[in-house]
Amino acid sequence: MAPGSRIDAALAGRVTQLARDLYPERAELRFHPQCFLSSGHFAGDDAARATAFLDFANDPSLDAVWIARGGYGAARIVPQVLENLAPAAMGKTYLGYSDAGSLLAALYGRGAPAATHGPMPADMLRPGGETAVARGLAFLVEREADTLEPSVTGTTLTAAFNLTILSHLLGTPWQPDLARHVIMIEDVSEHLYRVDRALCQITSNPGIRKAAGLRIGRISDIPPNDPPFGQTPEQIFRHWCAVSGIPFLGSADIGHDIDNKIVPFGVMS
Amino acid sequence: MAPGSRIDAALAGRVTQLARDLYPERAELRFHPQCFLSSGHFAGDDAARATAFLDFANDPSLDAVWIARGGYGAARIVPQVLENLAPAAMGKTYLGYSDAGSLLAALYGRGAPAATHGPMPADMLRPGGETAVARGLAFLVEREADTLEPSVTGTTLTAAFNLTILSHLLGTPWQPDLARHVIMIEDVSEHLYRVDRALCQITSNPGIRKAAGLRIGRISDIPPNDPPFGQTPEQIFRHWCAVSGIPFLGSADIGHDIDNKIVPFGVMS
Repeated sequence: MAPGSRIDAALAGRVTQLARDLYPERAELRFHPQCFLSSGHFAGDDAARATAFLDFANDPSLDAVWIARGGYGAARIVPQVLENLAPAAMGKTYLGYSDAGSLLAALYGRGAPAATHGPMPADMLRPGGETAVARGLAFLVEREADTLEPSVTGTTLTAAFNLTILSHLLGTPWQPDLARHVIMIEDVSEHLYRVDRALCQITSNPGIRKAAGLRIGRISDIPPNDPPFGQTPEQIFRHWCAVSGIPFLGSADIGHDIDNKIVPFGVMS
Repeated sequence: MAPGSRIDAALAGRVTQLARDLYPERAELRFHPQCFLSSGHFAGDDAARATAFLDFANDPSLDAVWIARGGYGAARIVPQVLENLAPAAMGKTYLGYSDAGSLLAALYGRGAPAATHGPMPADMLRPGGETAVARGLAFLVEREADTLEPSVTGTTLTAAFNLTILSHLLGTPWQPDLARHVIMIEDVSEHLYRVDRALCQITSNPGIRKAAGLRIGRISDIPPNDPPFGQTPEQIFRHWCAVSGIPFLGSADIGHDIDNKIVPFGVMS
């Protein structure tokens, strides 16, 4: 289902075919009809998107809910989703990233054991995007070890976020407890002053200060800063880690690209 | 002084001349030399900007600290400023808006009685900008009543923010208590999906939900949304007020323009 922006049927067809080719008789994908709705910015209105999410999350015959695409819209349906989760929702894998991080964080905070950052069907639209979508499938179908971000150990608590999405979770009732977690952060198409501003906020937060450390994913497609910002993304991360006392742990192999690796919220289940 | 972006000496000269013309022998402006520094994105590094702010805030011979310009950078110096305020800082008027909101909110939260949203010297650069700068002076020099946003009563608790700045205050140790306040919100150059995303966050916050109400200032210079967002800024504000139970109180005469009116944090002192 698509909690933010819509996808079209052709994309769904390509991803379905890929799943059939890679996992004949082992994987069955269902695209919720909601994916193809349109309501202004969103793939259907809030009620349609929340209902679609709950249709799948609460269905005991499904193993996973794979978020179809990012954009913006997941945060809007969080309250309705959390109020209506059935027991079947807790035994399920949730996979997505970017905008989906709002829902993943809320589900993780609610105790879902397998909220997971990773590729989405819409990654098929990137050049070479089959690689990313195949990685998502390899994780969903067989928990293949080399789909994981290299620092994921199976014992370290981890979480991965789009920087802007994480900044917009702060102060909400759905900000998850990330104490003792390694938090990996990526972003795309944000000016460096915005990257800095979001990290200034995030690293000041008392909850985030309990994290085990930050890792920097890819900060890509950065619009020009006027005047030049004067620091690289890594320098910005190192600065805010130094200010806040949160350990800077190096890079993370995540981003808005086809190399985006899998990161469990918590430990992999 | 300039907590974010720098200004140049020509601008300072024009504003100084305006003050002399309007208030001969009644107003003396001092531009801190820090205003003209440059360090990447900022008007000097964090230490230079924080020191300049404290030089003026802690000087008992000055009546006000007028923030020279917005941009980005005020949030970065909040901790150093708060840790070093002297008693003289509490008797002073602070005037600015946009990026300056980070500092104004932090000062208000610390008990400064006259943190104030309103025009800045850099508004002189707008067409017709003398009007805005003269309004700032009329407030600073004589608390002229018609400089005030029309809904400001002298008894109602108020606050005014740039939407993006307020969203980046959430979850920080400097988020002020805005219970029982009418919060006026403006923004500029943000996509409607970003306006919606920030309001989704802000109106979910338990502290903000104690506000007396929201007023919408001007949301100007909005880049095109792809696809069209489907709601106007006012519809977006009304939606989130309805969802959160915060009363929507109508419009506010504030914005990134020459008509931007004065709004005290708290009640006018």
